Amino acid sequence: MSPRKLLVVGAHSADFVWRSGGTIGVTVENGGSATVLSLSYGERGESGDLWRGKPEQTVENVKRIRHEMAEEAASHVGADFRCLDLGDYPLLITDEAMNELVRIILEEKPDVILTHTAVDPFNPDHPVAYTMVQRARLLASGAGVSSAFQSITPPDWYSFEPHQPELSEFYPNTFIDITPVMDKKIKAMNVMSAQSYLVNYYTELASRRGNHARRISGKKEIKFAEAHQRLMPWVVNEL
Amino acid sequence: MSPRKLLVVGAHSADFVWRSGGTIGVTVENGGSATVLSLSYGERGESGDLWRGKPEQTVENVKRIRHEMAEEAASHVGADFRCLDLGDYPLLITDEAMNELVRIILEEKPDVILTHTAVDPFNPDHPVAYTMVQRARLLASGAGVSSAFQSITPPDWYSFEPHQPELSEFYPNTFIDITPVMDKKIKAMNVMSAQSYLVNYYTELASRRGNHARRISGKKEIKFAEAHQRLMPWVVNEL
Amino acid sequence: MSPRKLLVVGAHSADFVWRSGGTIGVTVENGGSATVLSLSYGERGESGDLWRGKPEQTVENVKRIRHEMAEEAASHVGADFRCLDLGDYPLLITDEAMNELVRIILEEKPDVILTHTAVDPFNPDHPVAYTMVQRARLLASGAGVSSAFQSITPPDWYSFEPHQPELSEFYPNTFIDITPVMDKKIKAMNVMSAQSYLVNYYTELASRRGNHARRISGKKEIKFAEAHQRLMPWVVNEL
Amino acid sequence: MSPRKLLVVGAHSADFVWRSGGTIGVTVENGGSATVLSLSYGERGESGDLWRGKPEQTVENVKRIRHEMAEEAASHVGADFRCLDLGDYPLLITDEAMNELVRIILEEKPDVILTHTAVDPFNPDHPVAYTMVQRARLLASGAGVSSAFQSITPPDWYSFEPHQPELSEFYPNTFIDITPVMDKKIKAMNVMSAQSYLVNYYTELASRRGNHARRISGKKEIKFAEAHQRLMPWVVNEL
Amino acid sequence: MSPRKLLVVGAHSADFVWRSGGTIGVTVENGGSATVLSLSYGERGESGDLWRGKPEQTVENVKRIRHEMAEEAASHVGADFRCLDLGDYPLLITDEAMNELVRIILEEKPDVILTHTAVDPFNPDHPVAYTMVQRARLLASGAGVSSAFQSITPPDWYSFEPHQPELSEFYPNTFIDITPVMDKKIKAMNVMSAQSYLVNYYTELASRRGNHARRISGKKEIKFAEAHQRLMPWVVNEL
Amino acid sequence: MSPRKLLVVGAHSADFVWRSGGTIGVTVENGGSATVLSLSYGERGESGDLWRGKPEQTVENVKRIRHEMAEEAASHVGADFRCLDLGDYPLLITDEAMNELVRIILEEKPDVILTHTAVDPFNPDHPVAYTMVQRARLLASGAGVSSAFQSITPPDWYSFEPHQPELSEFYPNTFIDITPVMDKKIKAMNVMSAQSYLVNYYTELASRRGNHARRISGKKEIKFAEAHQRLMPWVVNEL
Repeated sequence: MSPRKLLVVGAHSADFVWRSGGTIGVTVENGGSATVLSLSYGERGESGDLWRGKPEQTVENVKRIRHEMAEEAASHVGADFRCLDLGDYPLLITDEAMNELVRIILEEKPDVILTHTAVDPFNPDHPVAYTMVQRARLLASGAGVSSAFQSITPPDWYSFEPHQPELSEFYPNTFIDITPVMDKKIKAMNVMSAQSYLVNYYTELASRRGNHARRISGKKEIKFAEAHQRLMPWVVNEL
Repeated sequence: MSPRKLLVVGAHSADFVWRSGGTIGVTVENGGSATVLSLSYGERGESGDLWRGKPEQTVENVKRIRHEMAEEAASHVGADFRCLDLGDYPLLITDEAMNELVRIILEEKPDVILTHTAVDPFNPDHPVAYTMVQRARLLASGAGVSSAFQSITPPDWYSFEPHQPELSEFYPNTFIDITPVMDKKIKAMNVMSAQSYLVNYYTELASRRGNHARRISGKKEIKFAEAHQRLMPWVVNEL
Repeated sequence: MSPRKLLVVGAHSADFVWRSGGTIGVTVENGGSATVLSLSYGERGESGDLWRGKPEQTVENVKRIRHEMAEEAASHVGADFRCLDLGDYPLLITDEAMNELVRIILEEKPDVILTHTAVDPFNPDHPVAYTMVQRARLLASGAGVSSAFQSITPPDWYSFEPHQPELSEFYPNTFIDITPVMDKKIKAMNVMSAQSYLVNYYTELASRRGNHARRISGKKEIKFAEAHQRLMPWVVNEL
Repeated sequence: MSPRKLLVVGAHSADFVWRSGGTIGVTVENGGSATVLSLSYGERGESGDLWRGKPEQTVENVKRIRHEMAEEAASHVGADFRCLDLGDYPLLITDEAMNELVRIILEEKPDVILTHTAVDPFNPDHPVAYTMVQRARLLASGAGVSSAFQSITPPDWYSFEPHQPELSEFYPNTFIDITPVMDKKIKAMNVMSAQSYLVNYYTELASRRGNHARRISGKKEIKFAEAHQRLMPWVVNEL
Repeated sequence: MSPRKLLVVGAHSADFVWRSGGTIGVTVENGGSATVLSLSYGERGESGDLWRGKPEQTVENVKRIRHEMAEEAASHVGADFRCLDLGDYPLLITDEAMNELVRIILEEKPDVILTHTAVDPFNPDHPVAYTMVQRARLLASGAGVSSAFQSITPPDWYSFEPHQPELSEFYPNTFIDITPVMDKKIKAMNVMSAQSYLVNYYTELASRRGNHARRISGKKEIKFAEAHQRLMPWVVNEL
Repeated sequence: MSPRKLLVVGAHSADFVWRSGGTIGVTVENGGSATVLSLSYGERGESGDLWRGKPEQTVENVKRIRHEMAEEAASHVGADFRCLDLGDYPLLITDEAMNELVRIILEEKPDVILTHTAVDPFNPDHPVAYTMVQRARLLASGAGVSSAFQSITPPDWYSFEPHQPELSEFYPNTFIDITPVMDKKIKAMNVMSAQSYLVNYYTELASRRGNHARRISGKKEIKFAEAHQRLMPWVVNEL
């Protein structure tokens, strides 16, 4: 495959690191590029550490810190970071936000989009992000028939792994070997100091998914992997 | 990918042509190889034309004719043909047949196995073939832990398309472009004269699946495709 | 529709009454005919009342009593009763029993077959009966292509309602109005004195399913109904 | 059955032809009547041919042409055509549109409603149409208990076949024989010249579904069929 | 378990009685407490009896009567009753209503929430109530990470039984013995005179679910039960 | 609950440790008792370390070593160990083995049975064990009606966690806190030296499942958990 252009859409500014940091790293390592698009900063739902014991804290400052952290983490795996700043808990769909997302997809022309799962019983914003991406991808790529507006080749798209996969109807049908970039993912995760215990959690998960990928494929060189769910069929030239 | 070794396991000697003739052709075209293993000759359930109006017909003769036809059809797409001659309608699982199938998989060491779906409300033998392959593949490749017997790398495996896909719980998650070998598949199908109306049926299906594959991928060069269901996750180095 | 020929296959000799007595009655009332084929007498699993406190009781006598009761109950709704006497708890599939069942289906040429559900977490014999019928129906009707053996038009087939429908993966997609024959079903149920509390249970169920059928269809005249799950698509001339 | 009144609700003005033209034709042939209600003209997503190379083209003109074509196609199968002109790509649900749809259903009192599937990974507007119909049908027919507003007998309702059935969670549980009106459906399809290659595609599909219907039912006279998914149980007087 | 605090959220003011009256009664009997929160009075969809033949009837009066009835019924099983009066047929989600529901959950801090099923093909308002509760529960309890807002321990939550369980994707994974309070549930049901035939219907259902619970558990003392679907896993100290 | 009697049925002699060692430990700690019943020694599929480089090794010796190891591991968590020695890879169902299993269940009268999942795409023996237990449990507890043979109260039953849960259709609906006995589970796992790398793997899994259980329940004291799938509804006195 020629170098791939990846678009990762997260509900909150830290989601991409835990769930697809390795996939981004591998894409860039292979000569591709990646953009992280965050729909919100997660300034309400995931930033308690920045507020606790700081009565002078402001929303603007929390967003600024979250932006800098996400930018730095993204840089460790070679991605650009943008944020639509739509607000979290709850993240809400508006016509304006939809149009903006369609516009970005048309502009980026990604080969692959990664986002949340359609179901997540632990987070109200993740399925909203999924729904927005699902609709925007279709509006940008058309129905496959001649249309009156600009359209792009339909990008491949995937859900990345949610916190509790079995309860989120997540079926990991694609394992990607992230062994060559695991060190970069760890650096990126370490930036997200507000949720530091998660670094261990997701390092163990990468090891566990690596074990699964080895058992499935027989490829003994895989040490770390990320699991994703491809949401459309594969079209191939060979099995 | 390096040249691939394909093993196609059908319940009856004609199944492989309609459901995977193009996939075989593409594999061989790409430098790989293919073996067709038929569990029976379909001498009872699918050979009415060889019996009707021929009171002198014998089972041995029907099997001989079916063997020659399958061999010739296989040769058009570049495959070898073997038959276990286990009987059809019903095809039954025996310990001996299971051992033989495990032995063949260990010997062939295929990269990919294709067979029927687990469910087929129109055919009693197809799910039996699926079950045999599903068990034999596991017995040949081991549990992924150290075992006391010889084992092989677990082959990828797929169900090919059944007659009525929605009623057979078939989910086409893999479309393979067979445009370059469609002429060969047609030649192979034409050999199966006992079921000649099926040539049109399956040529139209290949065109229809080609249309689907174009819409999914945006690859306008695809004219004909076969649809399969991959039964284990993909393990990849890149999305 | 012209008069219909119904074949009801139960694992035990009383199953048909509770689960399809009304359907049988309606079929016969409309000029059709019905045969009840029981795979066993339920002499172990469902005949405790005939054994308890009767040290002199014998298996032969239990079967004889169960036969007479089933025959009488069947007569109330207008059906013939036959039993293969294959034994229960467990009911086991043998090649011989399979051949017998295929032979009966070929001979009866039913328009419709009713039997148990594929799943029943409360009864080990019910899914075995389902599996036998599912296979025998296919072996009797062929694969839809020219075969070397006699075959019949594929009968419609249905699962009748199990004891706990939601836990048995039962989806009631067909409700049949049994209001005109409810009195006959009650007479048939009353014959099965060994399990008399069930008469109330299944009368209430018929009322409940009648309520459901009214709400679905708007047909206010329905008072009692039986629910079944059709296992193949409808083929119609009009919606 | 007495003559049936059919209401077909499509997201775009051409949907009804490909997906239910035969069903409409059969209904009318049997003495019934049919109304096609299109939620939009598909002026953006499906009308590229009317815009390409025509800088002077206007939305009003495109809608006018689409209206005339739909009206003409509908007339070939005997249906009336109306359009709510709600806009496409995206089609959006508003309270006003919902009220209008409820009002039309109350007025039409259809016996049967046909519309899109709940899921369609190739089209953002089709599931929106499904959702509108699903809600409007309930609001028009009430909860089955005494209500404070006018209500109608709950119409039967079906999803017609989407472009890629297996990927749209479409289960074809109802096949309707359209052999007697296939010539009319072809005439209707030919009107839709902007998407002419689809005529072949859907003629082949009708043949394929005809093959399926024959295999399921044994009715050898069926040459062409349409497949639909009935969304509520059947309530019958006989199996 | 220490005394439990229950919150029952119904779309209409009578829903709680039929579907969870016994569960409320048992909770209170065990020293716990229960609040019924109705999103609307069901003044349009379920109050036909209050309007029929009464040209002078007003919406305000219907709501007043419905409030008094619900309050009285609730008192029979020991619960408080509140109503958000959001309107029915259709019940619509607004940001304001969502905020109010979140506020109530934060204030009540329930151990358990009961509400409708996610799917109900017979009622447009029930799934809306489910969706509101599902989102409000998450917004009130946070994502399990440190947040900037007040949050509560995630309550257990359940769907209570809908009118036609199999058609509503209802899986009864929890049966609660309501034998000790069945008399109170009957009193509460009798208050709802506008829908009096439902008292018999739901008394029979309680008996039927009691039969199911006995068969599952072997507990012969259960005479009446309610079935619910727990929507999150159990976390236990012992199996 | 009064002290519980647990029966753990594994296909191979080491399965119980990884998948239910903590559950056994907790049951015993709470005053209950546990029996581990292994259907085979796993002498072919999981004992490669005992064979490799030991040309003099015998099957009898491998079984003896596996028995001693399992006995020692079981003792660390307080369980008895028995083995039916039915052979592995493949484990096959025979009437004799079924009768023996029924006899043991009748004799043990367990409150709870734990075994494998119905589906396991990585192991041919695990689903066979599931099927045997599923049938034997029903044959031992009867159909809930009066039977001619001895029967016991239907035990609760669960599938324990398979190697790759999402691919095995495993839905973890029950998390059990094993924090108090995690040290004992580690000791038991350490006995299984032939598969030592698994100790880390399953310690991490217990930590991960502990994290999940905390998020679900809000119980911050949980550090380690095992996940199981309860296969029948809960019957409770309180939610």
